[in-house]
Amino acid sequence: MQSHSLLKGKRGIVFGALNDRSIAWKVAEKAVAEGAQIVLTNAPVAIRSGEIYQLSEALNAPVIPADATSIKDLEQLFTEAQEKLGGKIDFVLHSIGMSPNVRKGRTYDDLDYKFLDKTLDVSAISFHKMLQVAMKQDAIAEGGSVLALSYIAAQRTFAGYNDMADAKSLLESIARSFGCLYGSKKGVRINTISQSPTMTTAGSGVGGFNLFYEVAEKMSPLGNASADECADYCVMMFSDYTKKVTMQNLFHDGGFSTTGMSAEAIEMFSQNCNKE
Amino acid sequence: MQSHSLLKGKRGIVFGALNDRSIAWKVAEKAVAEGAQIVLTNAPVAIRSGEIYQLSEALNAPVIPADATSIKDLEQLFTEAQEKLGGKIDFVLHSIGMSPNVRKGRTYDDLDYKFLDKTLDVSAISFHKMLQVAMKQDAIAEGGSVLALSYIAAQRTFAGYNDMADAKSLLESIARSFGCLYGSKKGVRINTISQSPTMTTAGSGVGGFNLFYEVAEKMSPLGNASADECADYCVMMFSDYTKKVTMQNLFHDGGFSTTGMSAEAIEMFSQNCNKE
Amino acid sequence: MQSHSLLKGKRGIVFGALNDRSIAWKVAEKAVAEGAQIVLTNAPVAIRSGEIYQLSEALNAPVIPADATSIKDLEQLFTEAQEKLGGKIDFVLHSIGMSPNVRKGRTYDDLDYKFLDKTLDVSAISFHKMLQVAMKQDAIAEGGSVLALSYIAAQRTFAGYNDMADAKSLLESIARSFGCLYGSKKGVRINTISQSPTMTTAGSGVGGFNLFYEVAEKMSPLGNASADECADYCVMMFSDYTKKVTMQNLFHDGGFSTTGMSAEAIEMFSQNCNKE
Amino acid sequence: MQSHSLLKGKRGIVFGALNDRSIAWKVAEKAVAEGAQIVLTNAPVAIRSGEIYQLSEALNAPVIPADATSIKDLEQLFTEAQEKLGGKIDFVLHSIGMSPNVRKGRTYDDLDYKFLDKTLDVSAISFHKMLQVAMKQDAIAEGGSVLALSYIAAQRTFAGYNDMADAKSLLESIARSFGCLYGSKKGVRINTISQSPTMTTAGSGVGGFNLFYEVAEKMSPLGNASADECADYCVMMFSDYTKKVTMQNLFHDGGFSTTGMSAEAIEMFSQNCNKE
Repeated sequence: MQSHSLLKGKRGIVFGALNDRSIAWKVAEKAVAEGAQIVLTNAPVAIRSGEIYQLSEALNAPVIPADATSIKDLEQLFTEAQEKLGGKIDFVLHSIGMSPNVRKGRTYDDLDYKFLDKTLDVSAISFHKMLQVAMKQDAIAEGGSVLALSYIAAQRTFAGYNDMADAKSLLESIARSFGCLYGSKKGVRINTISQSPTMTTAGSGVGGFNLFYEVAEKMSPLGNASADECADYCVMMFSDYTKKVTMQNLFHDGGFSTTGMSAEAIEMFSQNCNKE
Repeated sequence: MQSHSLLKGKRGIVFGALNDRSIAWKVAEKAVAEGAQIVLTNAPVAIRSGEIYQLSEALNAPVIPADATSIKDLEQLFTEAQEKLGGKIDFVLHSIGMSPNVRKGRTYDDLDYKFLDKTLDVSAISFHKMLQVAMKQDAIAEGGSVLALSYIAAQRTFAGYNDMADAKSLLESIARSFGCLYGSKKGVRINTISQSPTMTTAGSGVGGFNLFYEVAEKMSPLGNASADECADYCVMMFSDYTKKVTMQNLFHDGGFSTTGMSAEAIEMFSQNCNKE
Repeated sequence: MQSHSLLKGKRGIVFGALNDRSIAWKVAEKAVAEGAQIVLTNAPVAIRSGEIYQLSEALNAPVIPADATSIKDLEQLFTEAQEKLGGKIDFVLHSIGMSPNVRKGRTYDDLDYKFLDKTLDVSAISFHKMLQVAMKQDAIAEGGSVLALSYIAAQRTFAGYNDMADAKSLLESIARSFGCLYGSKKGVRINTISQSPTMTTAGSGVGGFNLFYEVAEKMSPLGNASADECADYCVMMFSDYTKKVTMQNLFHDGGFSTTGMSAEAIEMFSQNCNKE
Repeated sequence: MQSHSLLKGKRGIVFGALNDRSIAWKVAEKAVAEGAQIVLTNAPVAIRSGEIYQLSEALNAPVIPADATSIKDLEQLFTEAQEKLGGKIDFVLHSIGMSPNVRKGRTYDDLDYKFLDKTLDVSAISFHKMLQVAMKQDAIAEGGSVLALSYIAAQRTFAGYNDMADAKSLLESIARSFGCLYGSKKGVRINTISQSPTMTTAGSGVGGFNLFYEVAEKMSPLGNASADECADYCVMMFSDYTKKVTMQNLFHDGGFSTTGMSAEAIEMFSQNCNKE
């Protein structure tokens, strides 16, 4: 899609651009195409692969490594980002999620609680940490916009999504709680986007992902939303066209969330049921 | 706010621009500023005041009178609009609501059922009618965007909002039901925007409106969203940045919907409680 | 299930007991088993089959025919019911729904609007009418409990459920709106129960019902809730154990509403997907 | 309220009966009055005050101290409880919540993250731990019922409720996630009850609680639900009348959650606004 200078003059921080399948990667590209200057960040371990530096070069966007669970790293990130970008931050994308329980194949009735702490810390509490650090530094500009990526498992259970569902619920709650505070004090809006299953490296890590993806595709009247389309929506939410939207969880899912049973899915079930 | 040619080349129909306080009026202005060509429409009785013709002239946008509860009028509207705009319609705004029960001071436990039928027909069923007519004419372009304006009374009861609450629930349901259908068949997305109480002619008609407005202002971390801001949000929802958002009710309310009790409201209550 | 005298001394009105597959039929049986005295009512046309008189005899419960869309009939019903039962009414069940569009095979993009009016009047507005009549007669006892049966199509679109989805949304809104009023004034609570698809005469009328039923069965961790179980839940909501629950839509569905994708459903899809 | 032998023959575990203002205390009393045999449990530190032993004696219910964040303690609890009660457990109440951030006066934009971990572990993750332990021991009977107490801050922000809001969101998510699993495997239902602000020791600990309580009282058409009424509702949810209700968050709040603005609250605001 053509750009429209929607973020001209804005400064942003984008967390979580692992590789060119990442939603954060697309957001970074679109944000810059729309006129923003950005800083890229990710955990040191995620940066090791080096792909982010290609993006950095292409977008002329500095990389500041930061472990989003470390207050110290976040403090340095917000300080440096303001220096490098030359002012307060207008928008932030949090696209971070990881569950050691999922990775290690621990099912939801056999969770390792140290792993669960890690899941929550990385995937949800990190969002609070970055907001608290930003607020203490008064690093986000009046009317700034902060987004985190979520998934509908925060509302309904999806077999295999495991403790990431709980992490997403916590994440969305933090968006509301902090949104109320940061909104009243500084006019900063905070929202989550609940995105269709997306063919990213993180997404594919969830068990049975391909099937999820196919079912969601058939269950969504408009089909699944792609990473590219998600980036478009993020741009809109960072722009000045959405200044009074806050503390919301916004479904970007082709209608999946409000579809009980589509005609396409019924047909699919029907074929199967007739077999039995 | 500066425009960004977001709707360049798009054709739209805007229902409900009564006067310059109307949200639809602002949407019309912004849509044109963003590059769209539009047709204005309203009920013959609402057009009588003549103000819409000033807008028509300013925007170079033809007026096609149509009673949104009349299939015949709607058929003519969509036919003529396509002729005048030179192609299929890319976006539609439904900003129509009226309750004879509210107007005549009938409380919710003393409804006149003929009036209730009118409330539902004008404020909600009209939305189905326009969608059904549009679909039969195949009048909306692939990927088109349709919006209706709603209010949070569809989810929670507000004293005085009366049978309009039920109309808004019905309206939002129609958006979901038709959105599923029109999405699968033609990729058309249909959403409602649940807007802050707004100082429009219609809004002010609801009993105790000024108080509502003040309370909502204090209860919303970002304050109430204005008609102008709502128009910005509508433009975004009509644009190509939101192509996979459908069947949603989108709160545009400064955070009111997810705020249980703000610090400001507590202080307000507190002053009052201390008095007692 | 054994009864526990939960409704001892209570007086109730049960709408909609068509035949022994009806949820209302089960509610009538259980309410009487739990110690209540009740009046049965249904539309004259629905009573014609005569089955309700078997129930009437078995329960020693008078039948008072009433078209729930007729104020006059409802007035007479509440007057007579209080006479026959010897006091104010403690609980009411509204189990009424009918769509001529569904019956006549009109799809949602080809609705007949006279039919839609009928759908809404019979399935939703009738609930307001009975509440308004009851309130004007002060016919419901302090702390009384009123229930209407709903379906999750009020929140999410189910292909084939058609304009009944909109009727259920309207019904649930009326429960909230009137619940607020009747609660403040008389302590009467009003709720809707959103029940699993149920093998009733009405349920089976919806297109593709058997498939719906099967899918919901697999999607619900506890399986579909039966008519009998629904009656148990209604008894609980009529009892004094739930005196502060009001204006809620209560899912009674084996967990369907909060299940995105169950392991069982995934397996089912999986079999099918592998075929392709 | 008179009892009805609703829990006759059932075995239960009740967490969190601190003193006679506790909801858990009332639940214990009512459960026994309804025919259940129960085990009382609480953290060793909470038991120190000794009040629970009065309850234990009155109800003939053994106390088994257990820190709900300790797997070892929970394992012992479920093992011993089954021994003492003579069979599998039919119902469990989780009424546990505590925030060191609230206690130490750390505001939401100045959280101590060790404290936050503690808040989440005690108030939410403990619920997962008890369920996981129970499932591994197969300690809950087929069709058993598990409840946790929650608060509407999980959905909307209440100034002062702080990180407990996030804990309640997490708690409700765990109920859904585990409910799906335990439901499919063993027919166990898991729900949360979202209770009115209640004058308990825990409740009063939240900043500005009295004001909360008063506002909620005026905002709720039926007034706030008391601890006693909550216990009645818990009994019903433990009984066989609700066997297909699972994975739900059930508002028990006099209608607060679906009331936007009551006439009473408007009057209260109005008095205050007129002053200004």
